[in-house]
Amino acid sequence: MQGTLTQDGNSVTATRDLINQRLASGDFFWLDLDGIDSEAHDVLLTSFHIHHLAADDAQHFGQRPKVEDYDNFTYMVVHGAGLDEKGTLEVHFIIAEHYVITVHRGNCPPLDAVHERQARRGVDNVITPQFTVLYVMIDHLVDSFFPFLDVFDNQIDDLEDAILIKPTDQQLGTLFDMKRNLISVRKVVTPQRDMFAAIISGVTTIPGVTDEGQRYMRDIYDHLIRISDLVDGYRDLLSGTLDTHLSTVSNRLNVVMKQLTIIATIFLPLTFITGFFGQNFAWLVTRITGGWAFIIFAILFELICAVALAVYFRKKGWLGADSA
Amino acid sequence: MQGTLTQDGNSVTATRDLINQRLASGDFFWLDLDGIDSEAHDVLLTSFHIHHLAADDAQHFGQRPKVEDYDNFTYMVVHGAGLDEKGTLEVHFIIAEHYVITVHRGNCPPLDAVHERQARRGVDNVITPQFTVLYVMIDHLVDSFFPFLDVFDNQIDDLEDAILIKPTDQQLGTLFDMKRNLISVRKVVTPQRDMFAAIISGVTTIPGVTDEGQRYMRDIYDHLIRISDLVDGYRDLLSGTLDTHLSTVSNRLNVVMKQLTIIATIFLPLTFITGFFGQNFAWLVTRITGGWAFIIFAILFELICAVALAVYFRKKGWLGADSA
Amino acid sequence: MQGTLTQDGNSVTATRDLINQRLASGDFFWLDLDGIDSEAHDVLLTSFHIHHLAADDAQHFGQRPKVEDYDNFTYMVVHGAGLDEKGTLEVHFIIAEHYVITVHRGNCPPLDAVHERQARRGVDNVITPQFTVLYVMIDHLVDSFFPFLDVFDNQIDDLEDAILIKPTDQQLGTLFDMKRNLISVRKVVTPQRDMFAAIISGVTTIPGVTDEGQRYMRDIYDHLIRISDLVDGYRDLLSGTLDTHLSTVSNRLNVVMKQLTIIATIFLPLTFITGFFGQNFAWLVTRITGGWAFIIFAILFELICAVALAVYFRKKGWLGADSA
Amino acid sequence: MQGTLTQDGNSVTATRDLINQRLASGDFFWLDLDGIDSEAHDVLLTSFHIHHLAADDAQHFGQRPKVEDYDNFTYMVVHGAGLDEKGTLEVHFIIAEHYVITVHRGNCPPLDAVHERQARRGVDNVITPQFTVLYVMIDHLVDSFFPFLDVFDNQIDDLEDAILIKPTDQQLGTLFDMKRNLISVRKVVTPQRDMFAAIISGVTTIPGVTDEGQRYMRDIYDHLIRISDLVDGYRDLLSGTLDTHLSTVSNRLNVVMKQLTIIATIFLPLTFITGFFGQNFAWLVTRITGGWAFIIFAILFELICAVALAVYFRKKGWLGADSA
Amino acid sequence: MQGTLTQDGNSVTATRDLINQRLASGDFFWLDLDGIDSEAHDVLLTSFHIHHLAADDAQHFGQRPKVEDYDNFTYMVVHGAGLDEKGTLEVHFIIAEHYVITVHRGNCPPLDAVHERQARRGVDNVITPQFTVLYVMIDHLVDSFFPFLDVFDNQIDDLEDAILIKPTDQQLGTLFDMKRNLISVRKVVTPQRDMFAAIISGVTTIPGVTDEGQRYMRDIYDHLIRISDLVDGYRDLLSGTLDTHLSTVSNRLNVVMKQLTIIATIFLPLTFITGFFGQNFAWLVTRITGGWAFIIFAILFELICAVALAVYFRKKGWLGADSA
Repeated sequence: MQGTLTQDGNSVTATRDLINQRLASGDFFWLDLDGIDSEAHDVLLTSFHIHHLAADDAQHFGQRPKVEDYDNFTYMVVHGAGLDEKGTLEVHFIIAEHYVITVHRGNCPPLDAVHERQARRGVDNVITPQFTVLYVMIDHLVDSFFPFLDVFDNQIDDLEDAILIKPTDQQLGTLFDMKRNLISVRKVVTPQRDMFAAIISGVTTIPGVTDEGQRYMRDIYDHLIRISDLVDGYRDLLSGTLDTHLSTVSNRLNVVMKQLTIIATIFLPLTFITGFFGQNFAWLVTRITGGWAFIIFAILFELICAVALAVYFRKKGWLGADSA
Repeated sequence: MQGTLTQDGNSVTATRDLINQRLASGDFFWLDLDGIDSEAHDVLLTSFHIHHLAADDAQHFGQRPKVEDYDNFTYMVVHGAGLDEKGTLEVHFIIAEHYVITVHRGNCPPLDAVHERQARRGVDNVITPQFTVLYVMIDHLVDSFFPFLDVFDNQIDDLEDAILIKPTDQQLGTLFDMKRNLISVRKVVTPQRDMFAAIISGVTTIPGVTDEGQRYMRDIYDHLIRISDLVDGYRDLLSGTLDTHLSTVSNRLNVVMKQLTIIATIFLPLTFITGFFGQNFAWLVTRITGGWAFIIFAILFELICAVALAVYFRKKGWLGADSA
Repeated sequence: MQGTLTQDGNSVTATRDLINQRLASGDFFWLDLDGIDSEAHDVLLTSFHIHHLAADDAQHFGQRPKVEDYDNFTYMVVHGAGLDEKGTLEVHFIIAEHYVITVHRGNCPPLDAVHERQARRGVDNVITPQFTVLYVMIDHLVDSFFPFLDVFDNQIDDLEDAILIKPTDQQLGTLFDMKRNLISVRKVVTPQRDMFAAIISGVTTIPGVTDEGQRYMRDIYDHLIRISDLVDGYRDLLSGTLDTHLSTVSNRLNVVMKQLTIIATIFLPLTFITGFFGQNFAWLVTRITGGWAFIIFAILFELICAVALAVYFRKKGWLGADSA
Repeated sequence: MQGTLTQDGNSVTATRDLINQRLASGDFFWLDLDGIDSEAHDVLLTSFHIHHLAADDAQHFGQRPKVEDYDNFTYMVVHGAGLDEKGTLEVHFIIAEHYVITVHRGNCPPLDAVHERQARRGVDNVITPQFTVLYVMIDHLVDSFFPFLDVFDNQIDDLEDAILIKPTDQQLGTLFDMKRNLISVRKVVTPQRDMFAAIISGVTTIPGVTDEGQRYMRDIYDHLIRISDLVDGYRDLLSGTLDTHLSTVSNRLNVVMKQLTIIATIFLPLTFITGFFGQNFAWLVTRITGGWAFIIFAILFELICAVALAVYFRKKGWLGADSA
Repeated sequence: MQGTLTQDGNSVTATRDLINQRLASGDFFWLDLDGIDSEAHDVLLTSFHIHHLAADDAQHFGQRPKVEDYDNFTYMVVHGAGLDEKGTLEVHFIIAEHYVITVHRGNCPPLDAVHERQARRGVDNVITPQFTVLYVMIDHLVDSFFPFLDVFDNQIDDLEDAILIKPTDQQLGTLFDMKRNLISVRKVVTPQRDMFAAIISGVTTIPGVTDEGQRYMRDIYDHLIRISDLVDGYRDLLSGTLDTHLSTVSNRLNVVMKQLTIIATIFLPLTFITGFFGQNFAWLVTRITGGWAFIIFAILFELICAVALAVYFRKKGWLGADSA
C-alpha cells in the first residue's frame, strides 16, 4: 500500500494499523493512495467497509467522471488535463463523514496544491475538512484544462495559417490527432459538467458540502461550462480547418493547371507551325527559300500567334498580378 | 480605485470614505468601477461585504454571461458586441437593495447611455433605481450585436459574390476568421439568452426587478433570441459559402482542363501529321514533291482534322456561348 | 393614421374620434392599421392604453413570431410567406376583450380574406368576434407558406436535374440564395410553431379563444408542423444538391481528363516515332530509302502502336458506350 | 359514397339510410370509406356529427400522422409504406364508442387483413371491436415499412459496391432520389412514433383501447422505433455513400493523371531529343553521319532516358501491381 | 425444445413435464432455451402463461433492447457484441418471481459465465437468485463491447495511417463497412443505455432487483455510457478519416500535376526551339551552317531556357526537399 495519511496538516506514510487506529478515533483524516494494490484493496473493503463495486472501480482507472452514492460514503471520479498528450489525469474520491480517500496514479500536481493550501492556512479548513481536500483538488484538476486548451487554440491558428501558406499531408495527420485529443477531452468534460450541474442543483449531495460549499461548486461548474464551450468551439474550428485544407489544395491545383494550360496553349500551336514548315514537301520547301518567307512565316507568324494568346490570357485574368 | 459614484443623477469620483458614508446613509446609489484594482477589491470585500468568489470574478474579465445569487446581492455578467473585432464588451453587475455596482474596462458606450437617460428624465427612475441602470445598460449591450451582425450579413453576401466571381485563398482565411468570430459571439449570446429565459420565467430573481420590470426583461430576451437565431443562420451560411468555394474552384478547374484538353486534342494529332511528313523516308519524300501532294496532305488533310475536332467539341457542348 | 374600423361587418376609415367613441360604447370592433405613424402610436398609447413596449414593437416590423401577455391585452406577431422573395409578410395583433387591432404594412391578402368571410357570413361571427379576425388571418398567413414551399420543391428538383446535365457556377449562386431563403423562412416558422404549441397546450391564453377555438388553433399548429417538417426536409435536400454538384463536377473532370490522357497517350508516342525518323542521322537516312522501310516503320509500326493503345484503353473501359 | 359497412363480420355496401339505421340501433359497426365524396362528407357531418375540421381533414389526404381528440370521437391518421415509390399509404380513423370509420384511397391491403382476421376468428373480436379494426390495420400499415426498408438496405449496399467499381453521374441521381424517399418516409415515421409514445404513456387515450390493448400498442410502438432507427441509420449511410462517390472519383482522377504524367514525362524528353537531332544545323548534321553516332545518340541515349524514367516511377510506386 | 433447467446449481435437460413439476413446487429455477421451437412456444404459453406478444417476440430475434412489464413477468432483451462481424449477440430474458427464462441462439459465452459463477459460489446466490442470472449475463454481454471497440479503435488508427501513406479505393470500402458496423452497434447500445437509465432511476422495476441490486445495475449503466461515448467518438473519427482520405488524394493529385506541369513547362518550349531549327526555310538553313551557330542556338539557347525554368520552379518552391 502506497499512501499518505494527513490529519490536522500532518502527513505520515499510511499503514493498515494507523488507518484502523484513526478510524477508531473518529477524528477526520485524509488518506491519499497512489494506486490500489491488493493490500489497499483489502483495507478499503475491511477497514473502511467500502462497497466492493466502488473498491473495484478504484482499482481500474479509465473511469468516466461520475458521482455515486453509497450507504456510508460517496464515490466520485474527476478528470483533469493530462500531463502529457496521452489521456487525462484521473483522481477518484471516496468521501465519508470522517475521512476522505483520494486515489491517483503517479505524478499528480493537485495533491501538492492541497498540501500547500493546508500549510498556508494551517489547520483552519474552509467550511468542512472534507471540502477543503475536495474543492482544492477538483478546482486544480478542472482549471488544468485551460492552459491545455490555450495551447490547442494556438495550434489551430498556426495550422490554419500554415495550410493557407502551403497545405501538406502532415497537416492532415496533425488535424486527425487534434480531433482525437479533443474527443477524448470532450468525453471527460461533458459528463463532468453534467455531474456538477446535478451537484449544484441539489440532485446529488456530497458529504461535507454545505450551502456555502455549493457556491464553490457553482464556481467549478461555471469553469466546466466554459471549458465545454471552448471544446465545442474548437471542434467546429477543426472541421473548418480540414475544409480549408481541401479548398486550399484545390485552389493550388487550379493555379498549377492554369500554368500547364497556358504553356500548352502557347507552345502546342507554335510547335505545330514549326512542324508544318519542317515537312518534306518539295513543292513547299522550294517556295520558302527567301529571307522574306522566313521572316513572314517563321518569325512574324509565330510572334502574332504568341501575342494573340498572351492577350487572350490577360483578358481572362490568368496572367498578371491577380492571377493567383 | 477608478470609479464614479452617482446618486440622484449627480456623479462624483468615488473614494472609500464617500462609499462608506453613502452605505451608512442607506440611500440608493450607483457605483461604476473601471476595472478592479487592489483598493477596489478591498472595498468590495470590506465595505460592501461582497463574497470573495464574486469579488475575484469581478477582477477577472473573460467570464461567461451568468447570474449568481448570493445572500446579500446578485452577481451578473452581461456581454455586448466588442468595439473592435477582438472579443466582446463585458460588464459585471452587483445588484443589491441599496446600490448597484457596475464593473467595466476602458471605453464603455452603454455607460453614457445611462447618464444621458438619467439626465433626460432627471431623477425620476423608471420602476426602481436599480432597474434603470440595469435595463438601460443591458439593453444597450444586447442591441450592440445588431449592427455587428448587419455588417456580418453583408460580409457573407459580399464574400459569396466574390467567390462566384473568383475564388481565392484569401477568402478561405476570411471565412475561417468569420467562423471564429461567430463562434465567439455565439459563446456569449447563447448563455445570455438562457440566462434571460431563466429571469423572465421567474427561476432567477434580481433585486429591484418588479413585474413591470419583467416586461422589459422579456423585451431584452426577445432581442437575444433574434440575435441567437441570426448567429445560427450565419453559421449555416458560412459553411454553405465554404462549400460554394470548393465547388466553384472545382468548376473553374473543369473549365481550365477542358481548354487544355481541346488544345491538346486539336494540336497533338495535327503535329503528328506534320511530324509524319517531316520524316526522312526517301521513298516518301520523293513521292510528295508536287503541289497537289502538298495541298492534299499538308493543307486539306490538316484542315479536315481540325474541322472534325471542332465539330466534335461543339457537339459535346465544350465550345460556344454556354461552355463555361 | 391610415386605418379601417370594422364593426358588425361595416368598414369605415378610422379616426381618433371614431375610435374613442367606439371604445366608450363598449361594443366589439376591429381596427386595422396600415403601419403605425405618430398619430396612430399616440392613439394606441392614450386611447387604448397599450403598454409602450408593445406600441413600440408595433412600429418596428421585423419582429419574430411571439405572443406576449399584458395586463389588458395580448400582443401577437404572426408571419406568412412574403409576396415577393424579400422577407415574409408580417402582421401584428393586439387582442383585447372589446377590440382587435391588426397592424400590417402595404398589400396584405389575408385582410381581404377576413372581409370576404365577414361578408359571406354577415355578422354571425364564429365562436367569438375576436377569434374570427384572428383565425381567418392567421390561417391565411400560415397556409401561404404551402404554395411557396411547393415552388421551392420544384426548384430543388429542377436544379438537381440541371446539375446532373451540366453543373455551372450559376447553380451554386442559386443554391446559396435558396439556402438563405430557407433559413429566413425557418427563422419565422420554428418560433411560430412553438408559439402555437404553447397556445394549444394552454400555457399561453389569448382573449376570445374558447375550447372550440383551441381546435382551430390545433389545426393551424398541425399545418405549422407540416411546414416546419418540409423546411427541414428541403434543407437536407439542398445540402444534398450541393454535394451532388461537387461530385458531378468531379465526375466531369474525370471524363475530360480521361480524354486528354487518351489523346496524349496515343499521340505522344506516335509523334516520338515520327520525330525519330525525322532525325538527320545520315546513317539512318540512307538506310530507310526504300518503299518497304516506309511501309514497315512509318505505316505498320505506327498502326501497331495505335491499335495496341486502343485495345489497352478498351480493356480499361475508357472507350465505348459505358465510358462516361 | 363508396363504402363498406361491416357488422358482426358481415359486410354490405354502405348507404346513408343503412348508416342512420345502424347508428340508431347503437350496436357496434365498422364503416370503411374509399375516399370522401360530398355525400360521404355530408353523412359524416349530419349522421355522425363529426366536427367539420375532422371531416375536412378526412377529405384532404397528405395529412401527417396525428391523433386528435374531439368531444364524441378520436381522429387518427396513420401511414404505411406506399405501394409504389410515390408517397405513403395513408389511412384515416374516426373512432367512437359505437363505430369505427376508416378512410382510405384506392387499393389498401391492410383492409383485406382485417376482413381475413374477422373471417378467421368469426365475430369474437379481441379486447373490443374497435380495437380489432384499429390494431390489425395499424399493425399492417406499420409493418409494411420493413420490406420497404429491406429493399432500401440492399440498394445502398449495391450502390456502394457499384460506386467502388465505377462511379457515375447516374449514381448521384439515384442517391438524391433515395435521400428524397428517405426524407419522405422519415416525415411520417417520426411523428407516428411520437404519437404512439403518447398513446402508450397514457397522454393520449383512444376509445376502446384497454390496458390489454395498450400492450398491443406498445408492440406497434416498438416496431416504429426500430423503423425510425433504421431510417436514421440509412440516412447516415447515404451521406457516407455520397462521400465515397466523391472520394472514389478523386482517386480515379489521380490514377488517370498519373498515367498522363508518366506518358508525358517519358515522351516529352524523348521527343525533344529526336527534335534536337532533326535540326538543320549543317555543322551538326555533318558530324552525325556515322553508324556509331546513330547508335549512341539515337538509340542508346534515348534508351537510357527511358530506363532512367521507368526506374524513377517504379521507385515512386507509380508503376507495378500496387499502382492503383 | 432445446433447453437446460438449472436449480440449486444442478443443470438438467429441460422437458415439459420437468418444467411443470418445478413450477408446481414453487422453488426458484432457471430455464435456458436455445431458440424457441413450437414445443417451447407452447410451453411458454400454457405452462408459464406468458403473454402471447412476449412469446412471439422470443421467437423472432432481431428485437431492439427493451424491457416490457407484463402482469406476471418482465420481458427484457439485451444485446452484446457479436461473435463474428455479422450482427450482435442477442439474449431475451423472462423474469418472474419463481423463475428466470433466458432465450439465446447458438453459441453464447455469457451462459458459461453464469454456470461458472454458480459453480464457484455454489448455491449462495448474490442478492436474489433471479439477479445472479440476470446480472452475470448482462454484465458479460455489455462488457463484450469493450474488446470489440478496442479492435475498432486500432482499425481507425491503422486506416488513418495507411491513408496518409497511400489512399486507395479499398480503404473507402473498409470505411463504409466500419460505418455500417458502428451504426448497427449504436442501434443496440443507445436504447440499451436508455433502458438501464430507466431501471436505475426506478421508472422501470424488474422482479428480484433490490436496492443493492440497483447498484449493480448502475455499474452496468456506467459501462453502457462509456460504450455509447466511445461509439459516438468513433463515429466522429470515421467521418474525419473519410475527409482525410479526400484531402490526401487531392494533395497527391497536386503533386502529380506539379510534376506534369514542370515536365511540360520545360520540354514544350525546348521542343519548340528544336522544331524551329528543324524548319526547311532555305534562308535559315544556309545561315546556321557554322559550329558557332550550333553552339549558340542549339546548345546555349536551350541551356539558358532550361536553367531559367529550373530557377523559376525553385523560386516557387516546386523543386527541392520541401516540394511534396
